[in-house]
Amino acid sequence: MTRHQLVDQIFQKRTYLCVGLDTDIDRIPRHLRDQPDAVLQFNRQIIEATKDHCVAYKINTAFYEASGAKGWDVMAQTAALIPDTHLRIADAKRGDIGNTSAQYARAFFETLAFDAVTVAPYMGADSVRPFLEYTDKWTILLGLTSNAGAADFEMQRVLHRSTAGIESAELALDVSTSSTEHLYETVLRTAAGWGSEENLMFVIGATQADSFSTVRRLTPNHFYLVPGVGAQGGSLRDISKAALTADCGLLVNASRAIIYASEGEDFADEAAAIASQYAFEMAGYLPGSPVV
Amino acid sequence: MTRHQLVDQIFQKRTYLCVGLDTDIDRIPRHLRDQPDAVLQFNRQIIEATKDHCVAYKINTAFYEASGAKGWDVMAQTAALIPDTHLRIADAKRGDIGNTSAQYARAFFETLAFDAVTVAPYMGADSVRPFLEYTDKWTILLGLTSNAGAADFEMQRVLHRSTAGIESAELALDVSTSSTEHLYETVLRTAAGWGSEENLMFVIGATQADSFSTVRRLTPNHFYLVPGVGAQGGSLRDISKAALTADCGLLVNASRAIIYASEGEDFADEAAAIASQYAFEMAGYLPGSPVV
Repeated sequence: MTRHQLVDQIFQKRTYLCVGLDTDIDRIPRHLRDQPDAVLQFNRQIIEATKDHCVAYKINTAFYEASGAKGWDVMAQTAALIPDTHLRIADAKRGDIGNTSAQYARAFFETLAFDAVTVAPYMGADSVRPFLEYTDKWTILLGLTSNAGAADFEMQRVLHRSTAGIESAELALDVSTSSTEHLYETVLRTAAGWGSEENLMFVIGATQADSFSTVRRLTPNHFYLVPGVGAQGGSLRDISKAALTADCGLLVNASRAIIYASEGEDFADEAAAIASQYAFEMAGYLPGSPVV
Repeated sequence: MTRHQLVDQIFQKRTYLCVGLDTDIDRIPRHLRDQPDAVLQFNRQIIEATKDHCVAYKINTAFYEASGAKGWDVMAQTAALIPDTHLRIADAKRGDIGNTSAQYARAFFETLAFDAVTVAPYMGADSVRPFLEYTDKWTILLGLTSNAGAADFEMQRVLHRSTAGIESAELALDVSTSSTEHLYETVLRTAAGWGSEENLMFVIGATQADSFSTVRRLTPNHFYLVPGVGAQGGSLRDISKAALTADCGLLVNASRAIIYASEGEDFADEAAAIASQYAFEMAGYLPGSPVV
């Protein structure tokens, strides 16, 4: 799915919601739990109920891997249920040396029918490039995440790259005149050059509203995948005000708040109701039409 | 497998070799390729041929995921083939928000029979802790990796944590008196406190021999998983001289150099020959007995 196609969907349907299929067998309604293919049935009903209110689905690989090969099969079948009109995201947070990342890219972009995969930046350019080589797919790189642990490394102060190559002997002198930035800023600035705005997005957590203006300054036109509204407490209003662009530039994900909206037989209707509330609010923030 | 049991195996067999099962269907010998379960057959013969020369096997999940659910099944079956005397490592480089990392931990430590899993540090403490809660398993956190991309972020200069919390307004003053370290040093120092030397190891690439003394200073007693000898060019001699501890403290991995030693029907014999050469060299570097 190209950026043009994605933006078209967003403005036609007036929503930038992504529904997260973090489906945990222990949390789906009791009446489904004992049936064969319970998770697949649950996902099918969630997709059917929410598809008019969202433009993307995000499958969290962990919840499927927890069931082993059978879970991986359910993930493949779930990906195949997502309509072509919706962006299919594998939230996998992969990343390894080049020949290994190439295998991961093959797994999600060829063997499975995903349009996008989330990737971790720690190992640098050659761990991300094999994903970006699929120019008709999306690589979604972790930038600033929604969890408390973001403070441990992502928010650490890094010497600005222009001075960072120097040796420690010179450092005592140079550090006094050099500027610093957060590690996530270094990641955004550096990685923005690895792909294009047509095949690279960033993960920016909704709980990080204070940082959204910095993030937008560094990457003014990139799309962001924004987890952390709903169960994690981020504000849809705050992040939309701070980061919406002329062609939207945001996919806001909610998982638990939607898929576990009810534990009863009405779970799909309740999921649709919550998704529709998000979409209604989003329609109010979106410009009338994309300016591109 | 406890640290005591692992060290026992290392000194009994006088080897700290880990064999990496990065099995690519396109690279296994032709006579196997068309058979059903070709990858499993290949892995079975490699394990049988090399088990006396190594103490661990590392399964690279990417190479199995590239074949989808079927590949995941072959991975599960391969893990089950590894003898109890050997550490079973899933080289998966996972890491996500807490409830998701808990699912990954369940996938590798419960659903599959692994003793250890590699984890990426970018998202911080709460993304790693769910793995460390399995105190009888091993979490192997990325520290300094073997690839060129390590220069992009891992080698960036970070303000030392003791000064890192201050706001940017104060920073211009404080930065002149503060010290810096590489990001991988921040990761090692910070994460060392999250687990114990009995359930936390670090990945340190063999191509980073210049940094091994720094790494050992920061984490004097932790075990390291060291990829990057063989195909990636790291020196077994250099890293052993710099980082061996009284109870070894190293697992050195070779993958392609061993499993693809021959493309012919003699592949298992040739794999055994290469593994045996590594083990012979390692025996020369190991102390006579562990001092613990």
